[in-house]
Amino acid sequence: MSVPESSRDSDLPDLAIPGGGRLLSAIELRTTDDADLVEILLRLREAGGEIVTINTFPATKKSEGPDVTRVFDIELRDLDALTAKRIAETVPGVQVAGARPTLGQIFGKRVIVVGGGAQVAQVALGAVSESDRHNLRGERISVDTMALVGEENIAAAVRAVADLPRAHILVLAGSLMGGEITKAVRELREIGIPVVALNMAGSVSAEADLVVSDPVQAGTMAVMAIADTARFDLDKLRGRRY
Amino acid sequence: MSVPESSRDSDLPDLAIPGGGRLLSAIELRTTDDADLVEILLRLREAGGEIVTINTFPATKKSEGPDVTRVFDIELRDLDALTAKRIAETVPGVQVAGARPTLGQIFGKRVIVVGGGAQVAQVALGAVSESDRHNLRGERISVDTMALVGEENIAAAVRAVADLPRAHILVLAGSLMGGEITKAVRELREIGIPVVALNMAGSVSAEADLVVSDPVQAGTMAVMAIADTARFDLDKLRGRRY
Repeated sequence: MSVPESSRDSDLPDLAIPGGGRLLSAIELRTTDDADLVEILLRLREAGGEIVTINTFPATKKSEGPDVTRVFDIELRDLDALTAKRIAETVPGVQVAGARPTLGQIFGKRVIVVGGGAQVAQVALGAVSESDRHNLRGERISVDTMALVGEENIAAAVRAVADLPRAHILVLAGSLMGGEITKAVRELREIGIPVVALNMAGSVSAEADLVVSDPVQAGTMAVMAIADTARFDLDKLRGRRY
Repeated sequence: MSVPESSRDSDLPDLAIPGGGRLLSAIELRTTDDADLVEILLRLREAGGEIVTINTFPATKKSEGPDVTRVFDIELRDLDALTAKRIAETVPGVQVAGARPTLGQIFGKRVIVVGGGAQVAQVALGAVSESDRHNLRGERISVDTMALVGEENIAAAVRAVADLPRAHILVLAGSLMGGEITKAVRELREIGIPVVALNMAGSVSAEADLVVSDPVQAGTMAVMAIADTARFDLDKLRGRRY
């Protein structure tokens, strides 16, 4: 399903993460039970499209007929939404096809904040306020949080950040993190997602790219680190503590 | 790709949204350029699996060879991860296949908060703190935010909430919202995602399921409304203002 680099539209920012490629378009299909996802993908591929994401939902729109049972949201490279829509609507079972903005065009890069509720909330305060200032200047940064307790739960969440589309940076907001969480941080950094940690007990802060004592400051710095509208170079600050 | 209801594993909670179905398993595949996503999907389907989500990433793990260029994260119904992994790793180009938890098992239901930075941050404060209390009792609720300005931007974000996997409720945090945003709220509610609004100027609050003056309270109530661990019935409170 790979397509020559040259055929890609370079007008749109790439908000898929980590790195590489350019998102082009998204379509939403509302279908009956008969619609075959594989058939849809085959036809889109024949037209030169490369699948980036697929999400399926049960159809719940009250105004549509009982025949429509499923929704497919498909994001593609190398194919414009109008062409993709026209191709998809020829597949049996596809009742409604329409162009959509990609989730990256709406929600942009994601700052992920994981840890204890009190501290997650303070990091979010800093990150949301700072992202507001950058979004006003054309950035698209969203702040996503998860309040969790326990080494295993937090380690699993850190590992899962690698699977979150558009996750650009992780902030660990807690008072004691180590062991399996530290291992998970190492794995996450290895795939290229930087980690900011509060100044806390445990081994995790030694593995983080940046350690920040004030949670509001930690959220602010995390946003600055990924904003194209900010002058803040994580590479120059790696290993520092504030 | 539909499979009889009876064959589905009912042990796992359904965290796909809105409504219906049960997520079973997730696998991650690390592949060369030669791996064909459609071939992978065909083989998983032959074994009885139904695709729920697919996310693709460029491979960025520093320790793996240059041959591995792409990562496919696939969530499936009706097929356990071990079987899916074994099937996928027989496809040419798949170098590494492994079982993963689904994103729903880690991040659970999502509260989405959209609006102006100052108010989004206060709603997040309430929602994160309240979600912490429910997550300690076995819930999985995450709080995701987006600070935005402008009728068009906010309306587009409200519409896109319908496409966000596991989005369970939206909180609109602002001081003036109407026009296209109000239309978008109507559309979102039609597919079954409830909307909480701050007590604000504009027509949006008349369309919301619940209007709350204090942003921290709005965040708290939004979490209570979707937590299985809370006694809070949005149906009983619909149209009220607090």
